[in-house]
Amino acid sequence: MSDITSSALPETDSTGAPAERRRRSGGRGAERVRSSDGSKYLNLVNRLARTELLDPEALEDIHQTSLTVLEEIGMDVMLPEARERMRAAGADVTEGTERVRFDRGLIEEMIASAPGEFTMHARNPARNVRIGGKNLVFAQVASAPFVADREGGRRAGNQEDYRKLVKLAQSYDVIHLTGGYPVEPIDIHASVRHLDCLSDMVKLTDKVFHCYSLGRQRNLDALEIARIGRGISHDQLDAEPSLFTVINSSSPLRLDGPMLQGIIEMSSRNQVVVMTPFTLAGAMAPVTIAGALVQQNAEALCGIAFTQMVRKGAPVMYGGFTSNVDMKTGAPAFGTPEYMKAVIAGGQLARRYGIPYRTSNTNASNTIDAQAAYESAMSLWALTQGGGNFIMHAAGWSEGGLTASFEKFILDVDMLQMVAEFLKPLDVSPDALALDAVRDVGPGGHYFGTAHTLARYENAFYNPILSDWRNFETWTEAGRPTTYDHANRIFKETLARYERPAIDPAVEEELDAFVARRKAEGGVATDF
Amino acid sequence: MSDITSSALPETDSTGAPAERRRRSGGRGAERVRSSDGSKYLNLVNRLARTELLDPEALEDIHQTSLTVLEEIGMDVMLPEARERMRAAGADVTEGTERVRFDRGLIEEMIASAPGEFTMHARNPARNVRIGGKNLVFAQVASAPFVADREGGRRAGNQEDYRKLVKLAQSYDVIHLTGGYPVEPIDIHASVRHLDCLSDMVKLTDKVFHCYSLGRQRNLDALEIARIGRGISHDQLDAEPSLFTVINSSSPLRLDGPMLQGIIEMSSRNQVVVMTPFTLAGAMAPVTIAGALVQQNAEALCGIAFTQMVRKGAPVMYGGFTSNVDMKTGAPAFGTPEYMKAVIAGGQLARRYGIPYRTSNTNASNTIDAQAAYESAMSLWALTQGGGNFIMHAAGWSEGGLTASFEKFILDVDMLQMVAEFLKPLDVSPDALALDAVRDVGPGGHYFGTAHTLARYENAFYNPILSDWRNFETWTEAGRPTTYDHANRIFKETLARYERPAIDPAVEEELDAFVARRKAEGGVATDF
Repeated sequence: MSDITSSALPETDSTGAPAERRRRSGGRGAERVRSSDGSKYLNLVNRLARTELLDPEALEDIHQTSLTVLEEIGMDVMLPEARERMRAAGADVTEGTERVRFDRGLIEEMIASAPGEFTMHARNPARNVRIGGKNLVFAQVASAPFVADREGGRRAGNQEDYRKLVKLAQSYDVIHLTGGYPVEPIDIHASVRHLDCLSDMVKLTDKVFHCYSLGRQRNLDALEIARIGRGISHDQLDAEPSLFTVINSSSPLRLDGPMLQGIIEMSSRNQVVVMTPFTLAGAMAPVTIAGALVQQNAEALCGIAFTQMVRKGAPVMYGGFTSNVDMKTGAPAFGTPEYMKAVIAGGQLARRYGIPYRTSNTNASNTIDAQAAYESAMSLWALTQGGGNFIMHAAGWSEGGLTASFEKFILDVDMLQMVAEFLKPLDVSPDALALDAVRDVGPGGHYFGTAHTLARYENAFYNPILSDWRNFETWTEAGRPTTYDHANRIFKETLARYERPAIDPAVEEELDAFVARRKAEGGVATDF
Repeated sequence: MSDITSSALPETDSTGAPAERRRRSGGRGAERVRSSDGSKYLNLVNRLARTELLDPEALEDIHQTSLTVLEEIGMDVMLPEARERMRAAGADVTEGTERVRFDRGLIEEMIASAPGEFTMHARNPARNVRIGGKNLVFAQVASAPFVADREGGRRAGNQEDYRKLVKLAQSYDVIHLTGGYPVEPIDIHASVRHLDCLSDMVKLTDKVFHCYSLGRQRNLDALEIARIGRGISHDQLDAEPSLFTVINSSSPLRLDGPMLQGIIEMSSRNQVVVMTPFTLAGAMAPVTIAGALVQQNAEALCGIAFTQMVRKGAPVMYGGFTSNVDMKTGAPAFGTPEYMKAVIAGGQLARRYGIPYRTSNTNASNTIDAQAAYESAMSLWALTQGGGNFIMHAAGWSEGGLTASFEKFILDVDMLQMVAEFLKPLDVSPDALALDAVRDVGPGGHYFGTAHTLARYENAFYNPILSDWRNFETWTEAGRPTTYDHANRIFKETLARYERPAIDPAVEEELDAFVARRKAEGGVATDF
């Protein structure tokens, strides 16, 4: 374990001043970070009527076919304890195998107790997120093995970049929470990686975070870190969902041991499970989008039902991640027309069950070019119109999820803010209708200097982070920067401005002690 | 007039074979062009429920406020003949001025006769376009003063690039028609430019085209060229809209002479008027989007009402082009959240009147980067969800309309095709639901080689023009091409494959004779 890096956080800003002093001299860090972006994008509400692609009969066909899959084909449930719990709940476990079949009535009965809305609690209550209903929540990129920026190129995940990305997530309020490790820091030994990473989440952000379901002990450590971070009792943690885990099925039709264990640990503590099959049409799912949706739905309903078998009323989300493969190479494709359809149809399914809907801001570009933008924009189109509630990988996801990109993070933040602005209600007050202003200006005039304009000019429109609207000549003199160039500059500026959010020193002390103790115990046993 | 270039079309393909021989050896050119893209994207229908941002009361408020504008403030109508026609129809013309006021009842009565749907007829009936209702039609970029590609950079419009862009429009069936000169060829003298350009439109494409309303004679020449191109009588032209003109108001609240003349010439011949105010919030319109929409609506209704004063039942579209300015520079901004709202609200207004809705695929980027893509994608999002019927500048518009970009054209075509694929109904037949395929594969298998997959694989998903889905290593070996690089290659490949569509030799002869005669007459008088 000589390659374990320290979990200490040598935070200094560009002036070299320690974090504590900076906080003292300028007020609470959290407030200063928030004031820099104005806290305009917390608590987003999507009031648009949801777009529907499936008529009621088609929706029912997908639902019923997926129940037939669970009833007749079943799932492989790769954990004895989970099979036992399912048998106790009434499922049909085939002795001597992992196969479990579920009566359609059992599934319908179980999923009925999943809550339609719930709150995830952050250590800073201003960062609490409301999940479900018309609420729209964005989580940072998660789980990329690689990280990239222009200067450093593409490299394996590491702690330094991990921390930088987490700091970026803290710096923009449109990023409502982190969504897992934005990049996997493989320079930290796997036995203690979760301790360092989750400790960083608590210290570098004041937002809700995620725990990976990779064995019982990691879930338990994460629950304790979440509890300590919030400074609350075990009972309060049980009463207030504060941590979430993404559960992926091993499509087709399997749930593996660590994932099932994760559901048991998290649901039994009333924490949030995001049940997400990864059903690539033509690979792990049928080549037709409708068929892939049937399989997605079967796997999602099975996992959701299991959360309710573990604890009735446990918070859970319906995750959709159906896309297609590239016909030429078999590689996953994202942000495609097929992805858009799957996202929108998935939203209809989730709403049919009254369960919050998780989807993703995806793209498969290898760089920060037009493709990266149009695939992401089309993902955002579908998930916004389709009523996504909880958006994973909302900022920074590049190369089909293989790379967390610093520049893509900024590009996505700008697009997310545009979505948020688009969702703001249009002001149609008499003052906004501006009859008097039109009368004052009259035919042939202009509105540049009018009182109506001057009173509203500064905040009338969204001021984008990246869009370069200078005229061609000025832009040429500036060296013809592209969006990629601007994003590169801005992520570095944002990191330079980053300040750690305020934390109760007693909380930090307890957290450090817990991490130190667990490290001294060796963390989690690994076979290397 | 020594700078007038020839209107002859020395068409050769890369083999140097003349067009006629190529057509003979390979069938009719039009068919071959169509077969190259499979004619998949003609006659697009948008079945999505329209997104609405205005509740019924807000919609009525905007409507009524705009009628108040026309009633109390009025418009400056800068053509005596137009004022005379308006007075005859019941409008209140203030003697000795250009000001005309319109009773709200008069406007409502006049616009009621505008048709809700109509067909524009191309010389190739397969290229006819249905306007209004659920139909969605894409027109190429129009009216850019500059043209750009990577090698040649940004340059003034010229005939060679004009022709290349028109050929590109012919090469993709998702481009349903041309929308004006894609770039203004200033190397052709203004007196005969319209003759050369429209003759090219007829010969290089078999699609519907546009005529600029820049004086009566140009309208008359365009009508004659459209008639000759279709090989029909004057009576048939009057019965079948075959040509369209975009009429812009000189916002705020003015209609200039050539535009009014254009309405008179085109509407009286039952041709199509696209009535489009250009209402930039904070410049030529109030800084609030609601106020800009009030003004847009007043100007649009005035122009639409005038078409019906000229000829009851004349085909007309409601054009929306409201966007905002950059707060820093005053430059127009496009594809913004404010633009999206204006596009969607404009669609609600157009549907309230039962008049086909024209909008645009816009962006303000100076190059083909992520900004160009996200601003366009967000435009497409809004116009698709907002029920745009007729989309100007759908492909090739760059730099806020100042430049027609070859690479942007390809990027847009790819995005338009994605929109078209997204709008295709989702197949939810029992076969697509794939229960048997799921049963065959079972838990833990994969779908790559199954019969269900193999039978559908090739056409299961959209195959994009530009998206580079190779893995990072392969992409790196290929030199890390961006979308811009791919688009650059592909526009040249497309031009190399271009073939002129078939044309009746008698039609071509008549067209050439008309153009030659009109040129001999000096075209249209200019003061230079």
